[in-house]
This record gives sequence, C-alpha cells and structure tokens, in this order.
Amino acid sequence: MQGLGRAAKSAAKSLAQASTESKNSALQAAATAIREQRDQLLAANRADLEQATQRGISSSLRDRLVLNEQRIEAMARGIEEIIALADPIGSVIASWTRPNGLKIERVRVPLGVVGIIYESRPNVTADAGALCLKSGNAVILRGGSESSRSTAAIHACLVAGLRAAGLPEAAIQIVPTTDRAAVGYMLSSMTQYINVVVPRGGRSLVERVQAEARVPVIGHLDGNCHVYVDRDADVTMARDIVLNAKLRRTGVCGAAETVLFDRAGAAAAPVLKALLDAGCEVRGDETLQRLDPRIVPATEADWSTEYLDSIIAAKVVEGVDEAIAHIARYGSAHTESILTTNQATAERFLGGVDSAIVLHNASTQFADGGEFGMGAEIGISTDKFHARGPVGVEQLTSYKYVVRGSGQIRPV
Amino acid sequence: MQGLGRAAKSAAKSLAQASTESKNSALQAAATAIREQRDQLLAANRADLEQATQRGISSSLRDRLVLNEQRIEAMARGIEEIIALADPIGSVIASWTRPNGLKIERVRVPLGVVGIIYESRPNVTADAGALCLKSGNAVILRGGSESSRSTAAIHACLVAGLRAAGLPEAAIQIVPTTDRAAVGYMLSSMTQYINVVVPRGGRSLVERVQAEARVPVIGHLDGNCHVYVDRDADVTMARDIVLNAKLRRTGVCGAAETVLFDRAGAAAAPVLKALLDAGCEVRGDETLQRLDPRIVPATEADWSTEYLDSIIAAKVVEGVDEAIAHIARYGSAHTESILTTNQATAERFLGGVDSAIVLHNASTQFADGGEFGMGAEIGISTDKFHARGPVGVEQLTSYKYVVRGSGQIRPV
Repeated sequence: MQGLGRAAKSAAKSLAQASTESKNSALQAAATAIREQRDQLLAANRADLEQATQRGISSSLRDRLVLNEQRIEAMARGIEEIIALADPIGSVIASWTRPNGLKIERVRVPLGVVGIIYESRPNVTADAGALCLKSGNAVILRGGSESSRSTAAIHACLVAGLRAAGLPEAAIQIVPTTDRAAVGYMLSSMTQYINVVVPRGGRSLVERVQAEARVPVIGHLDGNCHVYVDRDADVTMARDIVLNAKLRRTGVCGAAETVLFDRAGAAAAPVLKALLDAGCEVRGDETLQRLDPRIVPATEADWSTEYLDSIIAAKVVEGVDEAIAHIARYGSAHTESILTTNQATAERFLGGVDSAIVLHNASTQFADGGEFGMGAEIGISTDKFHARGPVGVEQLTSYKYVVRGSGQIRPV
Repeated sequence: MQGLGRAAKSAAKSLAQASTESKNSALQAAATAIREQRDQLLAANRADLEQATQRGISSSLRDRLVLNEQRIEAMARGIEEIIALADPIGSVIASWTRPNGLKIERVRVPLGVVGIIYESRPNVTADAGALCLKSGNAVILRGGSESSRSTAAIHACLVAGLRAAGLPEAAIQIVPTTDRAAVGYMLSSMTQYINVVVPRGGRSLVERVQAEARVPVIGHLDGNCHVYVDRDADVTMARDIVLNAKLRRTGVCGAAETVLFDRAGAAAAPVLKALLDAGCEVRGDETLQRLDPRIVPATEADWSTEYLDSIIAAKVVEGVDEAIAHIARYGSAHTESILTTNQATAERFLGGVDSAIVLHNASTQFADGGEFGMGAEIGISTDKFHARGPVGVEQLTSYKYVVRGSGQIRPV
C-alpha cells in the first residue's frame, strides 16, 4: 500500500502540470479501449456474476454488478462528457494588484491524490477515474470485491489510455480487493499520500469511512430531502413536483423522503391522493391520516428516515417557520424545496434552510451534478468544508497564490 | 462542554442570518469597550503576569503575554479594520441559468461554529473573535492558561458588544482554562457542534491538534520558506529581498529559512556577505562554506529546519529544476520565492512549486492576509483542502446552492 501511495504521489506531481490536451487524449483513448474491449469486459463481468450468484447475492445487488452493452457504452460516453468539460487546472479564480505593485492571482491546482472507496458498481472505476484525471489528480481506486474482475478489466482500459497519451500509469491505480485490510489502511495510514477520500456506496460504507478516516472525506451520509408545500403553493404544480420528487427514481439521494404541508393550505389532499394512486405508501401524522384510509400512521422515526423506496412521510406544519425548524431538526442538510407563489415566503425559506441545495418551485431530484451543468459528479457532499453539493471536476481542486513582483520588500 | 457546544450551535443559527449592520455594530461596541475598559484589562493582565513570573516564565513567553496601552489600542484598531471588511455572507459567488430555466446561485454561508485553540497571546481573543463574528460564525475560544484573566477580560468586552447589538452572547464563548481536559474534548468529542478548529500557537500545539482532531483543522505546522536565487537574478534585488525575507522579522511563518543559489549565478557571495554582516548565521553546503569563514557547515537536518531566528541554511543547486525538487522534498508547502529576470524560468518555478504561496521577485514576508489585501487573517493554511494560504473572513465561509424554478420536474 505504501508503494501504491508513493507511486500515486509521484504521478500526481507530473499530472499537476499535464496539458489539457494530454489528459483529454488519455481519456479519449480510454473510452475507445472500453468500446473495443467490450468482449473482455463482458467476460470478466460474467465471471464476477457467476461468483456472486454462487455466494447467493440478492437480485438488486446483482443488478448493480451487471455490465451489459448499454452500460459499457454509457461508461465510454460518460468519459467523453468529461473530455468536453473545461479543464479547471491553471484557471485564475481571482486576481488583483496591491498598492505596492504586487500582482496576486489565485490559481486552481489539483488536490493531489484522491482515494475512492466504492461498492458493487464497476462503472465507478471509469467515472471516478476519469473525473480525477481531468482535474489533474492521481487516483487510488478500491472497489468492491464482488466486482473485482470487472474493475480490473476497466482499469486496464484506463491505463491503456494513460499509456497512449504518455501520462504516468500510476495516475490511476486499483487496490487488490483480496487485501481486506486495505480500506482501513487507506483511511488511517496513508495521510502522507492521500489528500481526500470519496466513499461511493451504501450507508454502512460511508459511516465507516467517516468514522475511521484520518484524511478529509467528501460525501454524504443521508439524503433525507424535504418538500414543503406552503399555503400559497399552486396546487397543480405541487402535485406534479411532489410526485416527481418522490417517484422519478426512488433510489437516488435527491428523492424526497418527507413532504410538509402548511396547515393553512389546500394541497395536502390532492397531492397525497396522487402519491397513493401512483402506488406510493404515505405515512402521515394524525391530521393527514384522516384524508385517506390508505394513509398509514407515521412515528417519530419516520421524520428521520431515508426510505429510498416508494414510501414518503407526511406532516402538517404551521407555516414556513415550522417547516424550516422541522428540516433543521430532522434533515440531513442535503436538498430541500419550497413550493409557493409567495416570493417573500420563498426567500425566507431559501435563506433560513441550511442545506447544500435549496430550491423554490422545482423538484429535489435536480440534486445532481449533471443537472447543475457541472457535467459529471463524483458524489454530493453535505459537509460545509471544501465542497458542498454536487462534487465535480472543479471541487476536486485546490488553489495556490501566484504573486508577481518587481523587487518588493515588506516594511518592518 | 456539551452545553457550550449546544449554545454555540444555537447562536450560529441566528448569526447566519444576522445583518451586516448588526455584526458591525457589535464589533464597534466591542472595540469601544476594549478602549474604555483599558484599566480593567491592564489589571487582569498584571495578575496574569505576576502568576507567570512566580512560575518562572521565560522572557520571550512573558513578552507574548503582556498587554500594554499600545497592544490594547492595536486590538481595538484591529477590530475596526474587520468592520471595514466586506461582509462575505450572502454574496453570490456564481450564478447561471440552465436550459430548463432553473436559475442557480452559489451563495456564501457561514461555516457554523469555529473552535480556536491558542496559547499565550491574549489579543487572539479579540482578533479571532471578531473575524468569526464578521463571517457569521459562532466561536469557542480556548486560550492559554497563563493568560486566562486577560482573556476573560477581553471576552467581557466582546460580549458587551454582542449585547449592545442584540446578538446572542453565546456567539463568542470562552472555555475555562482550569478544565485541562477541554482541549482534547474539543478536538475529539464535539464533532456535532464544531465545524472547524484553528490552532494558533507553537509547533507542539499545532501537532497535537492535527493528530487528535476529529473535525477539520485549518492551519499550518511549518513555515520552512525558501528563496531561490536564479542565475538570471538581479544581484542587488537578490541581496535586498533575501535580507528582508530572512531578517525583517525572524519569528513569522513567512520568514525565509533556506536560500538556494543557482550554481551558474553570481549572487551567492554578495547576498551571503550581506546576511553575515547583518548578524545572521549562515549554514552553508561545502561550496558556499568557501565563500566566507563565518559560514558554518550545514547538515542534512538544516534543509528541513524552521529556525525562527537569525539563522539561514544555504545551498547551491543546478538551476531551477533542482530548486523545485529541493523545495518539494524539504519544504512545508508554505511560501517560496524565485528571484530572476528570466520570465520563462520564473513561470517554470511558479508552475512547478506546489506551495500555498509562490512569488516572483518579492519577499516571502508578504505571506500575510493583510499584505494580500484580505484585511485580517486567522492564520495561514498549508493544507490544500477548503482554504490555502492566508485565512480571512472569506475562508471562514461555506456556500449553498439556491435554485429558483417555475415548476420544473426532472425527466426520468
């Protein structure tokens, strides 16, 4: 592992000054290799799937493991989207001249070495590898053991890309999953090599990483997102947005898990009816239970629960201030939306809610780097340090100050 | 301590939405109180000094403890400079509109609660307290036990300011220094209250904080700064800058600790003579030792040593690439300067050195928030995460995304 770390750090030094052309050229060659080696990828994946089936894997987990022609093409296309992104490295974030003539620039530089720890989905190997390379970072990838052959096969394509572009092969390394101590080691004993760790996976993985990491972590634990339907909400808009926020895709972190209704409004009945008619289970407080026999009683635990399923908690609140307080108490600081035609109420919510993303009259499912125009993301951060919200190429960077003078010395 | 944390977190919620006027008004009232309570401050300080003398404190440590009329006035003036700074909170860092009509803004918000752990110098209470307040953060201050009465007296002035402006008194709290377990507790057991810790003090304090903290830390361990005198340096400029970089003030983190000379240049003799004539000890490699009998032999350890004294290490290198390599190996990623008239060589150095601050033809002593135009700083960070270089009000903030729509739902 130390050797991996040293190689990554050394590769990071070269990468920091790699031209945009060479990085894009490596990415293009990698995308081409992925398409050309489709058969090898599928074969490696079949071997992983066979082993997983023998071990009695669940069907939803199996689905995450699967590579097929669609997903392979999506990997290649995802890399090409990253090629199209502007290269953040070297860009001047701010510049100014001091009274003494010093010209100061704040310039973007890579973070250095990124550690990605993930489970199941082999395409993370390509997505995360490509994002790190584009942002000038070396990356150490530690995927799940169940997808080890698929990961290795994808990695080989990425390395072929690096080689073709003359970039160091250690820019993208994978950690053998046979080394069970590797994850703990990456988190606690490689602080001199790894600048930041990004966990991609289920709750227990993220919890473990956050608990054990002695390096900074970018990520989020929970996406307990809320939609608040104010008294001044347009009822039709409320119904459409709440349906989309809950049911567009229930497994994403931006899916709404609780809907709050202003007691003084009239949207609860039509909105909840629409959810129930669409097959969603609604767990409501006492007031809401009376609206429909299909509504199940909610308990205290429901306000903090991220269902990742066709289930939503529903509660009545006394206006926007109680909505803000409820979110502050039970939310995970991820994504929250207010539906209202009242501008002042909207601004009160947008200012008062301390989450990574706050929306007015839009679905929480927009919590996504692509939807934000960032092209691709490595995940969403709910922390307030370094990066918050969708983490794309720009967030995988740091900066330095470049000061140009003409002999200035500082007075005593 | 848990009570302190809860109170801070609660105060942080109010502060996040406090107007610029109320924050500035609290700061002005605090500055006034500091001037008006000069006698109380001096009396408290005398008691601290008496106790310190009884305990046999060194004279340089005693000097750090001392409050006199000048330093009290400097504290008040420092707060007034912070009042004059632009309020970063609420400012829109970036904004854009998506094809689907969503208007996205990245807006500055406070970090939340900042923990400051410091030693000796009581004025940190005022400086750090004021910076945190201006940036909308609540702060928990844990000063040195040797300045406990001075710290408490200054804190009382800050609280008077908060009270006068109608802001929560828990916005600025001090931790009693009689609680010896408090520092360790702040670092490890208050992760749900404290968003970031800033250590202000000597090496062993910073080392301890970095080792034990379970929350993010902003700061630096070493300021092992370099000046590289290239073959194309202007010799007179080199002499003036190296003298200033080393000797302007030897105890600051931006003081140059090693000077590297290009073998092909002619500046070594005049520059080293000037340093020696000014009373600076020079520890040189074999080549440089021959230049002057006053030059002492350098050992391997000297390249990594931050002297904070009138001592400098000096070495000959084969041009800019070896200078870059030397700095990468021995430096602390703080501040490095290249002296040359060759633009291409300068750009090679500025691009190739991965430190927080890189300068061309200017003294490393400019590594300072005030000199950068940031008004005031809480310290200098050598980390690459969140903040790098001088840490001022802007760096004590995070951001959130505010998205304004008109009913948009996300397609499947």
